[in-house]
Amino acid sequence: MAFEFHYRRFVAWQDTDAAGIIHFTNYFRYMEEAETQFQLSLGSEFLEAVRQGIYCLRVSVSCDFLKPVTFGDEIDIHLWVRKKGRSSIGYEMSFRHNGEEVARGRLTAVCVSNDGGKMKSVPIPPALDQALQVAPFAEANADAKANKGSVA
Amino acid sequence: MAFEFHYRRFVAWQDTDAAGIIHFTNYFRYMEEAETQFQLSLGSEFLEAVRQGIYCLRVSVSCDFLKPVTFGDEIDIHLWVRKKGRSSIGYEMSFRHNGEEVARGRLTAVCVSNDGGKMKSVPIPPALDQALQVAPFAEANADAKANKGSVA
Amino acid sequence: MAFEFHYRRFVAWQDTDAAGIIHFTNYFRYMEEAETQFQLSLGSEFLEAVRQGIYCLRVSVSCDFLKPVTFGDEIDIHLWVRKKGRSSIGYEMSFRHNGEEVARGRLTAVCVSNDGGKMKSVPIPPALDQALQVAPFAEANADAKANKGSVA
Amino acid sequence: MAFEFHYRRFVAWQDTDAAGIIHFTNYFRYMEEAETQFQLSLGSEFLEAVRQGIYCLRVSVSCDFLKPVTFGDEIDIHLWVRKKGRSSIGYEMSFRHNGEEVARGRLTAVCVSNDGGKMKSVPIPPALDQALQVAPFAEANADAKANKGSVA
Repeated sequence: MAFEFHYRRFVAWQDTDAAGIIHFTNYFRYMEEAETQFQLSLGSEFLEAVRQGIYCLRVSVSCDFLKPVTFGDEIDIHLWVRKKGRSSIGYEMSFRHNGEEVARGRLTAVCVSNDGGKMKSVPIPPALDQALQVAPFAEANADAKANKGSVA
Repeated sequence: MAFEFHYRRFVAWQDTDAAGIIHFTNYFRYMEEAETQFQLSLGSEFLEAVRQGIYCLRVSVSCDFLKPVTFGDEIDIHLWVRKKGRSSIGYEMSFRHNGEEVARGRLTAVCVSNDGGKMKSVPIPPALDQALQVAPFAEANADAKANKGSVA
Repeated sequence: MAFEFHYRRFVAWQDTDAAGIIHFTNYFRYMEEAETQFQLSLGSEFLEAVRQGIYCLRVSVSCDFLKPVTFGDEIDIHLWVRKKGRSSIGYEMSFRHNGEEVARGRLTAVCVSNDGGKMKSVPIPPALDQALQVAPFAEANADAKANKGSVA
Repeated sequence: MAFEFHYRRFVAWQDTDAAGIIHFTNYFRYMEEAETQFQLSLGSEFLEAVRQGIYCLRVSVSCDFLKPVTFGDEIDIHLWVRKKGRSSIGYEMSFRHNGEEVARGRLTAVCVSNDGGKMKSVPIPPALDQALQVAPFAEANADAKANKGSVA
């Protein structure tokens, strides 16, 4: 059973913009990479499912950007499972640089199969479902965040 | 005074992924394009500000993905100003394809200047500030959405 | 019959990097956009072919970058057909800003169908093939370029 | 002294397109990543130079795509120095998957400093210049490739 994962990412030159910092869209790239590496760490079923046309589509994502980060920095991403349904998995991710939180994101994915051009939700593949667990600290964490108010 | 904008975007091949649909990160690219074209439509001050090192950094973005969209489709983006502060502008954007909402996003930007490597918030450039207005329907719309519940 | 096309592209903020200019990878994005809009301008067959699983895979691309271009600039792309085979189409593209050439690229695509996971070359879809013609000035142009020497 | 480097890259979902394979633009992202990691492996001077506003702009890149590669695959990139001038460095890169070459690319970068908005070529930073060497096999390799003819 797993409910969290750590992923380290080097900030590439191509990830920066003319303000000299990571362009915000790239945090979502990093989120997907962390999500994928977490799922791959749970066994081969995730990749097999994808190859059989079962995808984890994202239905909702968000991110707050707290501190600018630049080329050559490394980001430590701490991912945890925030909620789990029959077909859906909710992740929360904290991005840190030099021990300080620089961004905080959420991503909800739903397992679907392509049914003649229409996406239809399906249960999380069984072995993946059994390996995945909601993080025991997910609820407390969500509360803490709600009390903190807006980032801007 | 302006509080809304329409932007049409062709879905490029490079925007798709192996599920045959727009990869979710590209909605944020579209959001930025719509935001930029709106700001450019309000006069030359936005571009002048950028050239003098005043940037609109995004501090918070989110998007719900409601329907898959694919290569060759066109998306109509309806952007409106949801809130406005001294330094910050909040946008909401509805993405439609064939008259149906396919995604709904929010973006909050804060005007900053680069003060010796540190980003420091500054007031919205005056002419831009005067041209921008919160959409009269922003509040009603926010309520409607809150009542609709989660997308997943 | 068509052998050339013009496409204008606004340089987005997301296309820049920390040097304040278009990141080189984005020229290839622009090239694909110009290629697609050209093919769409020739009729509906291109999109129909894609929907039936016939793709124009790129087998070779190159680009020389002559002048830096930045956010808020507009680029005029002049595309022409440089060569044509049974399955393959070769394009050349000149990127101009304020009347000056800022980049020059080439792209060769091959029509393929997905044959049980293997990509297999197929003839250019007939209506597209009939509409496409090698530019009369393609050869002369290629010579001029060869004589100009290296860009660096 | 160093003239080659190996870099392994996981193919992310976001790197694929609707044909189910790596979108060609992403090979250029991988090329930049390999180039950066190679330069970082040679000491801290590269990053210091970037932080002082000396950039390695790419003036010419090309890539031939030989075999389709898909999500979940890993690519081994073999980079070597093909030529070196006062300000410029030319790389060649071979992309392999399961021991087979899937793409072959070239990239030429020129060191520049931003001189009041104009990019001006400058010598390769000294420690980087001393650490870099043209690969002894670069010439032979170039010949082999020239004799092989076109990929398409």
